[in-house]
Amino acid sequence: MKILIKNVILGKRKVDILIEGEKISKIGKNLNLRADEKIDGKGEKAVIPGLINCHTHSAMILFRGLAEDLPLKDWLEKEIWPRESKLTEDDVYWGTKLAILEMIKSGTTTFNEMYWFEEAQIEAVKEMGIRANIGLVMLDFLPTGSKEKVEKLYLKFSHLATQPLGHLVTFSIAPHAIYTVSKENLIWAKNFAKRHKLLIHMHLSETEKEVKDCLKKYKMRPVEFLEKIGFLNKNCVFAHCVWLENKEIEILEKRGCSLVYNPTSNMKLASGVFPWKKIKGRKINVCLGTDGPASNNSLNLFSEMKIGAILQKIENKNPTVISAKEIFQMATKNGAKALRINAGEIKVGRLADLVLIDLNKIEMFPEYDLISNLVYSDAKNCVSDVICNGKILMREGKIEEEEKILKIANCRLQNANWKK
Amino acid sequence: MKILIKNVILGKRKVDILIEGEKISKIGKNLNLRADEKIDGKGEKAVIPGLINCHTHSAMILFRGLAEDLPLKDWLEKEIWPRESKLTEDDVYWGTKLAILEMIKSGTTTFNEMYWFEEAQIEAVKEMGIRANIGLVMLDFLPTGSKEKVEKLYLKFSHLATQPLGHLVTFSIAPHAIYTVSKENLIWAKNFAKRHKLLIHMHLSETEKEVKDCLKKYKMRPVEFLEKIGFLNKNCVFAHCVWLENKEIEILEKRGCSLVYNPTSNMKLASGVFPWKKIKGRKINVCLGTDGPASNNSLNLFSEMKIGAILQKIENKNPTVISAKEIFQMATKNGAKALRINAGEIKVGRLADLVLIDLNKIEMFPEYDLISNLVYSDAKNCVSDVICNGKILMREGKIEEEEKILKIANCRLQNANWKK
Repeated sequence: MKILIKNVILGKRKVDILIEGEKISKIGKNLNLRADEKIDGKGEKAVIPGLINCHTHSAMILFRGLAEDLPLKDWLEKEIWPRESKLTEDDVYWGTKLAILEMIKSGTTTFNEMYWFEEAQIEAVKEMGIRANIGLVMLDFLPTGSKEKVEKLYLKFSHLATQPLGHLVTFSIAPHAIYTVSKENLIWAKNFAKRHKLLIHMHLSETEKEVKDCLKKYKMRPVEFLEKIGFLNKNCVFAHCVWLENKEIEILEKRGCSLVYNPTSNMKLASGVFPWKKIKGRKINVCLGTDGPASNNSLNLFSEMKIGAILQKIENKNPTVISAKEIFQMATKNGAKALRINAGEIKVGRLADLVLIDLNKIEMFPEYDLISNLVYSDAKNCVSDVICNGKILMREGKIEEEEKILKIANCRLQNANWKK
Repeated sequence: MKILIKNVILGKRKVDILIEGEKISKIGKNLNLRADEKIDGKGEKAVIPGLINCHTHSAMILFRGLAEDLPLKDWLEKEIWPRESKLTEDDVYWGTKLAILEMIKSGTTTFNEMYWFEEAQIEAVKEMGIRANIGLVMLDFLPTGSKEKVEKLYLKFSHLATQPLGHLVTFSIAPHAIYTVSKENLIWAKNFAKRHKLLIHMHLSETEKEVKDCLKKYKMRPVEFLEKIGFLNKNCVFAHCVWLENKEIEILEKRGCSLVYNPTSNMKLASGVFPWKKIKGRKINVCLGTDGPASNNSLNLFSEMKIGAILQKIENKNPTVISAKEIFQMATKNGAKALRINAGEIKVGRLADLVLIDLNKIEMFPEYDLISNLVYSDAKNCVSDVICNGKILMREGKIEEEEKILKIANCRLQNANWKK
């Protein structure tokens, strides 16, 4: 399968791009080559890497708007958990499909997932054609979070993970957090991940309470505890990382961990502010995530980039503390690095995960600086075409199965058990 | 002119709405009446009041993305002011039209404006059919900001202001700020506004520097100074209001002033955080604004509501400090109150300024709580139809002259003087 994209703006140049199979194979002027599909940007579309959402719980879209503006404890214990316990595999399948719809429409081509019913997620990802890292979730107090489940699922699906570059589904081991997974199980997870060359995807230091509880239980701060048990290495992708002290940041740097900034969720739940100023300038890979759509309430990484940038500016009383370019890189190149995928940049040899931006939309006016417009001007509805793994997922704003998915999902979920 | 809107969701009910002339004349079930225009919501659209942007500088859209992530002083002095000094009336006319395009597309039907070349703005507003309060700007160091200009312009256009309810253009006197307008001119402005029953639209306590300079110059804080010169009354609409002490808030409450919360701009420029917690529960009318699109960089009030809500949650370390409903009210009912227009609610007798929301969009899923989805789920692209003053400005996402305006504006501005 070949796709030829004509006349798109890449940086300051107008170029043609040839995609062969799952990769970008040529970028140049006047490529007049045969292709199965052609898209003409007419010099009025820009091309950017597909955005990468490094931390989410997709199917929680089912709970979006359900119970807002509550204290975290009430929200979780009274509203979310009782409903989650009633979710079925079918619910998660449809929830994941809906979330993927929203991600594609907002220019996301890869997401790093952590939620239950992993098999349903895999099904949804494969059908929708997006790229995802599926976390095999561990949680001590649930049978669906056991080591046995992780082993069983990994055995069943490992053929996907070990296939060569370009396949849509990869896996991580996803122990929920240090306060929900025992030391023994964390060590098991670390070893399992190492043995199978998997990523680890985990919440870390999201709330002050987590740190206080850790100090009480282990007499150490969370990162010190993880260091002590030999958990930390460059396969770790940690979400939130709000309550970090300098000594912890130094450890994370030394071990080469990736950190995921989740500004909207951290603000909405009043968890705290990611310590960007302490991290900036260090050799730490920082990427961006929306967190689940029940605590954001969106999967739009354009909005996340804006909120992420302006939050750091106000927090540090300094408008220069972070630039549009830096936050854009978190949502693209850094995300790809964290998830070990050959994407995040438009270059020959990279995976063909890319997004076309309609420059004729009012949000892209004036065209002084594309990156600035993408980050600050609310660019979601300028996404016109989305290609992932060399396949067109959205063309001129249209996703083939969009209406059908929305209709079926609506019907299936109308009488869901957890809605009562 | 009559417009009949069939089968739209208003709160929990499905209703029909009849618009006669510029007002909502009937709301009920099964209104089968003759009308010049019909819109059928098919039970799949919700109706909300048109959003009200209480502080902006529209034509600054021309400078959007021009020079980002700079310290405020450099941004203003090196980038913005030198270019502003070269702007022509024609530039502002096209800039205002472009900004209005973006506002209509994001469901805004009224804006409170403060910028130069007021005549060009009036022209743009009338042509686009949106509602606006045009600030007659006062600035001591510019001839275009003189008392004489204000008097002359008011004389020329006062027939618009004194016409009965329902006309699109009203006026305010807009002294830029206490540090750019002398005490004498502020007193003149207050008296002029009082004599002609006009609003006053002014920046107030946006930065800490403004307060410090005021303390130095007048030995009082800004609000105390304004109180001392008898400036404060219920016609005042103050933008920003970030650096307020309790005693100042008490004065503003006593005088019945309206305050405009501009969260995104305050964050992006690192100005500070609006003291919502101190204000909440008082009898103070708080409304919402985007500020100019060069310091936001958007005119989307949906995004402003979200950012405004989550900023207060993190600032006050309390997710319950502000609700979706409260911030939605700032952007609708409270805005109407500040600008003294009979809008901001969908009720019989109110001006027909309303917006239809497409409930079939993924952002509106699930439908637990419309207000929560509007505030938190990135709802801009769910705006399908916009009616202002009983006239349809956008239908099914289409604005009649959109492409034409974008094309002409682009051509006209390509070689603009200030772009060099």
